[in-house]
Amino acid sequence: MVDGLGAPLTAPLFDRVALIGIGLIGSSLARVAKRKNLARTIVASDASAEVRARVAELGLADEIAGSAARAVEGADLVILCVPVGAVDAVAQEIAPHLAPGAIVSDVGSVKGAVLATLTKHLPKTVAIVPAHPVAGTEESGPAAGFATLFVNRWCILTPPEGADEKPVKRLAEFWTAAGANVEIMTAQHHDLVLSITSHLPHLIAYNIVGTAADLEAVTQSEVIKFSAGGFRDFTRIAASDPTMWRDVFLNNKEAVLETLGRFTEDLTALQRMIRNGDGEGLFKLFTRTRAIRRGIIAEGQETAAPDFGRHRDDKDQ
Amino acid sequence: MVDGLGAPLTAPLFDRVALIGIGLIGSSLARVAKRKNLARTIVASDASAEVRARVAELGLADEIAGSAARAVEGADLVILCVPVGAVDAVAQEIAPHLAPGAIVSDVGSVKGAVLATLTKHLPKTVAIVPAHPVAGTEESGPAAGFATLFVNRWCILTPPEGADEKPVKRLAEFWTAAGANVEIMTAQHHDLVLSITSHLPHLIAYNIVGTAADLEAVTQSEVIKFSAGGFRDFTRIAASDPTMWRDVFLNNKEAVLETLGRFTEDLTALQRMIRNGDGEGLFKLFTRTRAIRRGIIAEGQETAAPDFGRHRDDKDQ
Repeated sequence: MVDGLGAPLTAPLFDRVALIGIGLIGSSLARVAKRKNLARTIVASDASAEVRARVAELGLADEIAGSAARAVEGADLVILCVPVGAVDAVAQEIAPHLAPGAIVSDVGSVKGAVLATLTKHLPKTVAIVPAHPVAGTEESGPAAGFATLFVNRWCILTPPEGADEKPVKRLAEFWTAAGANVEIMTAQHHDLVLSITSHLPHLIAYNIVGTAADLEAVTQSEVIKFSAGGFRDFTRIAASDPTMWRDVFLNNKEAVLETLGRFTEDLTALQRMIRNGDGEGLFKLFTRTRAIRRGIIAEGQETAAPDFGRHRDDKDQ
Repeated sequence: MVDGLGAPLTAPLFDRVALIGIGLIGSSLARVAKRKNLARTIVASDASAEVRARVAELGLADEIAGSAARAVEGADLVILCVPVGAVDAVAQEIAPHLAPGAIVSDVGSVKGAVLATLTKHLPKTVAIVPAHPVAGTEESGPAAGFATLFVNRWCILTPPEGADEKPVKRLAEFWTAAGANVEIMTAQHHDLVLSITSHLPHLIAYNIVGTAADLEAVTQSEVIKFSAGGFRDFTRIAASDPTMWRDVFLNNKEAVLETLGRFTEDLTALQRMIRNGDGEGLFKLFTRTRAIRRGIIAEGQETAAPDFGRHRDDKDQ
């Protein structure tokens, strides 16, 4: 198929997959699991009755459970698709109901804290394999998901040291069938890498949007009108789910503060270049940053179309 | 027409329009001027012989002049489409060749410095009306332009105090016919507004891309692979033309340093929230930033499609 998902599997990879939390990621997983035949049965649960009703309406799951505890019963794969800060409570709730041998995973943007929490609460009879699909949009909720969200994106697995290979391999197969490329690393390294490729960009974006809103000499209307000068790019990720991102920063404090420290040092140097009128230094920095975008486009992680393809229909007219 | 440019004018607005510098903006102006019949004759010039050859090849102008001095002869509208740092030299070159009554404008991202330079070098017989179309892509050069670049974008005119109304009105007509909305303000206010909606975003983007490239514990390959977590958004504007942006920071030093100071203060407060685990403070900031994106989309300055429309072809599959 042209969209990179390929044909459905002839036999499902898992018997019963429980998805706990049906937002952007959970609903995308439900969609791709159904389309690719990744599970004989997809069970969905969500803390919100409104979301459960929407899931039923959209036909995203074979079964909808009224609670996480109920959802995980008999599941051979459980994926928590809740904000990182909700993992602790969900883990405690599901622990007594998990089937022996089940794989328990998640999709959170922080892995050290999640691994620690799951290890603390879950029985030794299950295999804990935390995961993070590096994919998403700024939208939230069950209607925002789509089956191809993970195609050609990376999914990072962070099994604990000394984990069994088999469940890790099975979860990798699941994500591969969902269209993703799988990489395995420690939770600690994940948290450092993502602090620069995801957490700091969100922090900076939220911050600049806040700064713009607070300037007295520039009106909100002016910020909006003239946002095409670059500012609007930042507002996209600053429109991401506030609960999810609050939890990321509360749970990856150390790595984020370290990376933020480096960013601030560099910014201070750049500030000095501007103050001193150091054109050569500015030009040098502004030139070297082009290469990394070329790399990202070459690796298929970004569209090559100018302006993110916003002008896709205009060019050559 | 569906692309927002509308039908060509029945009579050209200007007799002879000289475009000095044929990059992304200059070539887009040439294209829209031709398509909309904004000029009886379009004269192009560029300091680079290679660019002049490309302009001829692309058929962007009626005449190609070997020098800026030659290009402006007899022109009733002259638009400098060169980096801000090149305006001084070009102004000196064209000054003796300008026709009395000509309107001289530009498209630079800084207006105070440009207005001062033009006022210093140009004869009193011409009308100086600096302009800034807030539009562009991260690409450069004559092949990167397109006729609809300015459609529904804002073009800011910053005439000097006490300027004649007529030339300002004529230039406003030109930009309106090119598809833009026109706003008039002082050069000083422009430079402050753009410092937050354009200059600071570029500065921050260049800086974070530099920080990522310099981390020892995270490889370049990891930064590229996992850039879909947010980082890749920043690489777009950090891939913009280095000469243009060096000149912006050298020529809007005061406003940029002021705005950067505000940004840094806010970032320090945010850093403290993370350090102190202030979930409520984080949530509050992350919530208020959504409204501004909604405003930008509502005003037609941004696509409503999630992820900038990168998944435009995927959704609902």
